[in-house]
This record gives sequence, structure tokens and C-alpha cells, in this order.
Amino acid sequence: MIMKDFYYAYIDCLNRRAWDELGLYIAENARHNGRPFGLSGYRSMLIQDVENIPNLTFVVDRLVCEPPLIAARLMFNCAPKGEFLGLKINGRHISFAENVFYEVNNGKITNVLSVIDKAAIEAQIAE
Amino acid sequence: MIMKDFYYAYIDCLNRRAWDELGLYIAENARHNGRPFGLSGYRSMLIQDVENIPNLTFVVDRLVCEPPLIAARLMFNCAPKGEFLGLKINGRHISFAENVFYEVNNGKITNVLSVIDKAAIEAQIAE
Repeated sequence: MIMKDFYYAYIDCLNRRAWDELGLYIAENARHNGRPFGLSGYRSMLIQDVENIPNLTFVVDRLVCEPPLIAARLMFNCAPKGEFLGLKINGRHISFAENVFYEVNNGKITNVLSVIDKAAIEAQIAE
Repeated sequence: MIMKDFYYAYIDCLNRRAWDELGLYIAENARHNGRPFGLSGYRSMLIQDVENIPNLTFVVDRLVCEPPLIAARLMFNCAPKGEFLGLKINGRHISFAENVFYEVNNGKITNVLSVIDKAAIEAQIAE
């Protein structure tokens, strides 16, 4: 599978909440921002994210692939129920970007280095 | 010039504070996070950054190129003099990542979409 197709299939898996398919994309020993989550921890993080943000949808805004790396700019329009990144959102609608790098080895994501635009969210809730 | 060489030359230009060469890399109509800075505004932003952070050095940690896009993960170890991203740093040493996408057209950067890991900085100054 070419890398772009692989990545869009991964994003589709997240948007369908198809957690049982996550192992097709995430390696058993995957790391997320330096944390050795593994597949099970990664899955738990996503389930928690969707619990906090029921209308969470991943939209790919920019995608750059050069094996073994993928870089994506994801855009979110959502309404976290309580706190998000330590900010009291309490159901307000916010929009923000996540710029994220993935390392892919043997056909699965082994490392994720993600930065969420917290400053943009702070500016929105200060309005 | 291949894209990686172009990008490393741009980063070298920044680290040398070679502001007179910036126009080799940044287009006259460049945008930065949605702001229509142009080359002159981009240059002013960088000069201000270096005034606030004299030991600012750009280190490329990850680089993904697929024309017309470049994605880079930059790492910074520095000591902002006063405030940075609205946080009172006051000369403390901090380390953080910037995940950034660039659009390159006609051999120059026309659009920059950058996210700095503010949450990581907050965690460091809360220690």
C-alpha cells in the first residue's frame, strides 16, 4: 500500500472509531510524544479523547510523505466536554490544528511526534 | 536545488542571522500562520525573535519533503529574555519543538503553517 493510502485508511479508522482495526496501523511498540504507549495505550488514549470530545473528527489539511516519515497537518472543529489540554472548554466549539510526524516501520506507525496549537485554542476561549 | 538542500540553506541563513539573504528563501508575498507578512514582515518577526531570544538556534530534527511541501520538526534549546508565547520565561532555559509545514512555489517559501509545543514549555516552567 502506498503511504498516502495507508495514512488515509488510518484516519478513516479513527473517524469510524474502529478501534479493533487500529493494530493494522499502529505497531505493538508504538511511542507517542516520547511515551512508550504501545498499541494498547494508544488505543486507550484515543478512546479517552473520543469520550471527552464526542464529535471529534480528524480532517487531513496537509500531507507530506517520504518513507519512512509521514507529516500531516490535521484540522479539528469540535466541542470538548470539559477540559482539553488543561483549558476549561466546557462544550464550547473550538477549531485548531495538530502538526504531527509519524515514523512508519514494517508497514506500521512506530513513533508519533505531535504538536497541538494550544495558543490558538487559548485565543478562541479568551474571546 | 533539491528541496532538502534548499531547506538546510534556509535554516543556515537563519542561524547566521543573514537577514539580507532571507529573500533567497522567502517569497515577497509570504504568509505565516494566516498572516500576510510578506518578506519584510517575516524578516521583522525573525529579528524580533532573535532580540527576545539571543541564543536562538534552529535545529532540524525531522524533515519530510514532497514538492511543493516541506514539513520539518525543529528543536530549540534557548533562554528567552522575557515573555515567550505569553509565558514569563525571564531567561530560564527551555526546550521545545516546532512542527511546521511550508509551501514552496517558484523556488521560494510562500506559506508557513507552524505550531510550537507551548504545553511542553508550560510543563517545564511549572517544575
